[in-house]
Amino acid sequence: MAIRVTVWNEYLHEVQFPEVAEVYPKGIHGCIADFLKDAGMDVRTATLREPEHGLTQEVLDSTDVLIWWGHMAHHEVADEIVDRVYQRVLNGMGLIVLHSGHASKIFQKLCGTNSGMLKWREDGEKEILWVVDPGHPIVQGLEEKIIIPHEEMYGEHFNIPQPDEQVFISWFEGGEVFRSGCCWHRGKGKVFYFRPGHEVFPIYHMPEIQKVITNAVKWAAPTNAPEIVYGNTQPVVELHAKLEHSIQGLHEQKDIDA
Amino acid sequence: MAIRVTVWNEYLHEVQFPEVAEVYPKGIHGCIADFLKDAGMDVRTATLREPEHGLTQEVLDSTDVLIWWGHMAHHEVADEIVDRVYQRVLNGMGLIVLHSGHASKIFQKLCGTNSGMLKWREDGEKEILWVVDPGHPIVQGLEEKIIIPHEEMYGEHFNIPQPDEQVFISWFEGGEVFRSGCCWHRGKGKVFYFRPGHEVFPIYHMPEIQKVITNAVKWAAPTNAPEIVYGNTQPVVELHAKLEHSIQGLHEQKDIDA
Amino acid sequence: MAIRVTVWNEYLHEVQFPEVAEVYPKGIHGCIADFLKDAGMDVRTATLREPEHGLTQEVLDSTDVLIWWGHMAHHEVADEIVDRVYQRVLNGMGLIVLHSGHASKIFQKLCGTNSGMLKWREDGEKEILWVVDPGHPIVQGLEEKIIIPHEEMYGEHFNIPQPDEQVFISWFEGGEVFRSGCCWHRGKGKVFYFRPGHEVFPIYHMPEIQKVITNAVKWAAPTNAPEIVYGNTQPVVELHAKLEHSIQGLHEQKDIDA
Amino acid sequence: MAIRVTVWNEYLHEVQFPEVAEVYPKGIHGCIADFLKDAGMDVRTATLREPEHGLTQEVLDSTDVLIWWGHMAHHEVADEIVDRVYQRVLNGMGLIVLHSGHASKIFQKLCGTNSGMLKWREDGEKEILWVVDPGHPIVQGLEEKIIIPHEEMYGEHFNIPQPDEQVFISWFEGGEVFRSGCCWHRGKGKVFYFRPGHEVFPIYHMPEIQKVITNAVKWAAPTNAPEIVYGNTQPVVELHAKLEHSIQGLHEQKDIDA
Repeated sequence: MAIRVTVWNEYLHEVQFPEVAEVYPKGIHGCIADFLKDAGMDVRTATLREPEHGLTQEVLDSTDVLIWWGHMAHHEVADEIVDRVYQRVLNGMGLIVLHSGHASKIFQKLCGTNSGMLKWREDGEKEILWVVDPGHPIVQGLEEKIIIPHEEMYGEHFNIPQPDEQVFISWFEGGEVFRSGCCWHRGKGKVFYFRPGHEVFPIYHMPEIQKVITNAVKWAAPTNAPEIVYGNTQPVVELHAKLEHSIQGLHEQKDIDA
Repeated sequence: MAIRVTVWNEYLHEVQFPEVAEVYPKGIHGCIADFLKDAGMDVRTATLREPEHGLTQEVLDSTDVLIWWGHMAHHEVADEIVDRVYQRVLNGMGLIVLHSGHASKIFQKLCGTNSGMLKWREDGEKEILWVVDPGHPIVQGLEEKIIIPHEEMYGEHFNIPQPDEQVFISWFEGGEVFRSGCCWHRGKGKVFYFRPGHEVFPIYHMPEIQKVITNAVKWAAPTNAPEIVYGNTQPVVELHAKLEHSIQGLHEQKDIDA
Repeated sequence: MAIRVTVWNEYLHEVQFPEVAEVYPKGIHGCIADFLKDAGMDVRTATLREPEHGLTQEVLDSTDVLIWWGHMAHHEVADEIVDRVYQRVLNGMGLIVLHSGHASKIFQKLCGTNSGMLKWREDGEKEILWVVDPGHPIVQGLEEKIIIPHEEMYGEHFNIPQPDEQVFISWFEGGEVFRSGCCWHRGKGKVFYFRPGHEVFPIYHMPEIQKVITNAVKWAAPTNAPEIVYGNTQPVVELHAKLEHSIQGLHEQKDIDA
Repeated sequence: MAIRVTVWNEYLHEVQFPEVAEVYPKGIHGCIADFLKDAGMDVRTATLREPEHGLTQEVLDSTDVLIWWGHMAHHEVADEIVDRVYQRVLNGMGLIVLHSGHASKIFQKLCGTNSGMLKWREDGEKEILWVVDPGHPIVQGLEEKIIIPHEEMYGEHFNIPQPDEQVFISWFEGGEVFRSGCCWHRGKGKVFYFRPGHEVFPIYHMPEIQKVITNAVKWAAPTNAPEIVYGNTQPVVELHAKLEHSIQGLHEQKDIDA
């Protein structure tokens, strides 16, 4: 069965700036949706200004992997929707956060840090992404590096938790480095942050970048995860000894009190 | 200079239940404060019902390591104070979360998961904590295991991100295991979660448990961390080529628009 | 294309002890090969007493994932063959090490520790494996725990490097815990250690155990990894300044001297 | 008590090449020993051509942290001495591997990979080391980056296991990046790899580099680690049921046979 992807885009730059619309006539989401469809995936899009930002419970429940692109309107994303996405990730939905999505509410919430903190510069300088984990499924079919002729720079320190799997590290012409491809597990879900992808530089038209995102969707797709029982549970094996006087009564009281 | 520790306690059980007050006549915070003072630390306490929960900006700014114990009133902790603690951790303050603090707002925020999710049972069964990283500073001076005769059980799955450093894993008589001693780095700060510590079982009177907490305070104490520059920065080395037409103007427009 | 698996077994117990032969009439390797074939894989077997232990360069070059079971004759495995397997793992072959394979030369070499060190006891006690990373591909289709009625105990401390991905933790009736399902990346290859699997207890006949091993084979199978260039390489971008007097001559001398 | 450090150096370049002797008149080991003594440590040195390479069991047993610099004669280091160092690390001795020590036998053995594999170039280009874990004890008292005007380049892919703690990432003028400061735990010991440090470029005279190495020695110094019991152990808690017929006899037979 095809992986069901929802590509979410803020979709403001493309509407407001002809320079951006020229690069992404169908929006960044449209561009990404196109190459994922070509890769055989079942793709929808959603954008900020739609009701519930296009991310109703129904949409999320039928999404295997959500792709997130936002830049200048992170604050407009409703906390309620952020919580909804967060719960779906913990329940198994994959999440791929692109470029300026590093400062989105959802990514910060999943990081547990203020991942909006980094260095940046828009001089269109060269970026080179180096593969540092060559056996990782996200880099299959690639070469050992990806060269992007003109990009916005992001530099360390990037305030993220150490990635569970570090896939790419970037070099920038002006002297900076950046952890550009980072994986984390969160609950039953998987999260991939991928740095490249400015609204003016035509990054998402590059075949190598498309390859990475396509691989990442496959990596992040949910598995048939075990059902987990949480809460007050009975012993799996019989207890040797139990305390003579249970403290249960005490806690019943507490519950009333709380 | 002595490490400055603030021990935070919800301090509700001790007030409401004689059974608890008997175990911790000065409150759980008082007990912990005492053994940390004996270890040469500069210790204060703070509790939920104080103004700002006793965690004013001034208190946090002069705290090296904060210890957190809460159980039945996590929801009473104001979001504003949670944010304040969060920022201090990212800026270098150590945080030690004990037992039922796993479900506190601050721990969930730093985890990036709903760490409140786990199995539990209050039958006073035996717990054995095994050291799995014997070279870790938090286990120095200990034996290879700590046996607690009667404890509340916490069982996997515990919904945390994989620890950066896994120090202890617990065994419970009823058949469960638990990742009981877990370290994470968050920004400039360090976080240690330590499972033992019920309000009725006299866990914090055990010398081995006191040793772990004392070691953890030393491990989590802030270092003289580098100053980090975030934001729009100049290149460290001269750029070979710059794009002919800067995209700066475009972004100035955007800022106005946003 | 089917994944090409080679199941390697010491194959001594089954030959020498009727009690073992009764449990595994085709050898442990035969049992494992059978269920992997049923899962659609292309499976061969190899054993210690074959020439080159059945692991010729040709066999390894056409193996996607190697499964390793050994117990009492680790010292009989030739260092040359160990090196051959090691190189293949670094070049992308998956390796699944089972049970007493923890003390094999190849596993120790890939760990970088003396992974032979652990506690053990053969009282046939109960083992419960708990899933601690429910989104991991290796646990798909399972329940949250696997109960093995009678097993040999392995207990911490297990002298391994902290796993890149911790999948299972075991509970044993006698009071021990164990990191029973552990993943590491090594070069382009992936390594999974899975604890269960004694020669007398019929572990590999259990459907859940078969499921884990089948999932692990899929996880460890090589990807189309990038070609990496190692050694003395030219700059990707032109150097601003080069030292006036190269130190190359110096090193040419050195090479002669060394 | 002062930390007892042994600085090990191949000590061949300094003897053979006046250009190197000029930079390090007392040898690289002499230079490092001097600044560690100034930091209050108890320092000895040892070199390749001494009997047992200066690393007798007695020397290692009284060493808290060993620093390793080698380049062109890794193959001359006796396997027996490598094993001796390896055992000491697993038993708690810290190890700091510098620069070309990445290809040493001892580092490869502790990595579990062929860590000798990387890109290199000796054009004396600029290197910038960026701190990516600002709360790590190894970076205390530093700035957010270290600029080295002329260095040998090392580039990814560097064939190491993902570090337990990633402290520095380097930028090189020619377009490469490198994981330049990496921590691992191995048994009771800690290992730090630090990239800078060529025999001709006067790296070890730089105060920032001296600061990193001094911090690393403190981080890697052994703690009072728990005694671990390995081998055949009795249950901690009484077993509910034991198999009727022990399989012990079977294994006694096996031992005779093996």
